[in-house]
Amino acid sequence: MESPFTHEYFMKKALLEAEKAFEKNEVPIGAVIVIGEKIIARAHNLTETLNDVTAHAEMQAFTAAADYLGGKYLKKCTLYVTLEPCQMCAGASYWTQIDQIIFGAFDPQRGFRHFKTTLHPQTKFTGGILTGECSEIINRFFIEKRNLN
Amino acid sequence: MESPFTHEYFMKKALLEAEKAFEKNEVPIGAVIVIGEKIIARAHNLTETLNDVTAHAEMQAFTAAADYLGGKYLKKCTLYVTLEPCQMCAGASYWTQIDQIIFGAFDPQRGFRHFKTTLHPQTKFTGGILTGECSEIINRFFIEKRNLN
Repeated sequence: MESPFTHEYFMKKALLEAEKAFEKNEVPIGAVIVIGEKIIARAHNLTETLNDVTAHAEMQAFTAAADYLGGKYLKKCTLYVTLEPCQMCAGASYWTQIDQIIFGAFDPQRGFRHFKTTLHPQTKFTGGILTGECSEIINRFFIEKRNLN
Repeated sequence: MESPFTHEYFMKKALLEAEKAFEKNEVPIGAVIVIGEKIIARAHNLTETLNDVTAHAEMQAFTAAADYLGGKYLKKCTLYVTLEPCQMCAGASYWTQIDQIIFGAFDPQRGFRHFKTTLHPQTKFTGGILTGECSEIINRFFIEKRNLN
C-alpha cells in the first residue's frame, strides 16, 4: 500500500495553516515541519498581528521545530510551505541545515530563487506541490481583503 | 561643535551589546537601531540561549524597533551591528525597508555581500566602523570560550 504521507498530504496541512492566517487578515501563507512522518511544528504568517516583518510562517516554524527537538539544527527535517520562501527565510534555513524544503506556489518576484539566496549544501528543494491551491488562497486574499481586483 | 553622535558612537553601543553576548557564552555580536539620534532597540545574539538559529542580534533588534515604533517599517532608522549581516538578517532588512545599515567587521564567508543578498532599494550600507574592536571580541570569544587557539 502506498504511504498516505505524501508531499501533498503535508502541503494540505500547511494550507490549513494558511487558512488560519487568512481568517486573521494576514497574507495567507502556512508552513509545517516534518521529521519522519511526524509534524513537529505548524505556523502561519503573523506579520500584521505581531507588527513584525520577521514573523513569516517559516521563521516561526523553524523556531518551534528547534524548540520541539531541543536542538538548533533541523538536519533530518522537511519544511513544507505554501509559498516559495523569501531571502530571509531561505537564509534562516541555511543556519538550520534543514534536509529539505518543499514549497507550493512559486514567487518569481520575491522568492529565494529570484534573489539567488544560497541554501545550505545539505538542503534540497522542490517547488510546485499543490501550487494551484497555494496560489488561489493568496489571490483570493488580495481580491477579497485588499480589494485588489 | 561636532556632534558626538557619530557612527563610532553608536557602534560602541552595539559593542556593549556584543559584550553582553560574550558573558552569556554567545558568539559576541551586538546591534542597536537608531532613529534621529535616539537608540530605540538594543539586542545581542541569543542563538544558544534561545536554542534558535534565527535569534541573531539584528533580527531581535528589528522586532524590538518595530515594536517601539508601532509600525512594521523602519524607513528612517539605521541599524548598527558589530558584524556584517548574514543572508537571513539582510533579507529581513529588505522587508523593514530600513534606511541604513552600518556594520563593524566584515564577514567574507557568511556576510550578505559574499552571498549577494539583495537589500531594499532604499537601504544604504557602510562597513568597517570600529572593525578592529568588532573583530577582536569575536576572535577572543573563539580563543577563550571555544579553545580555537
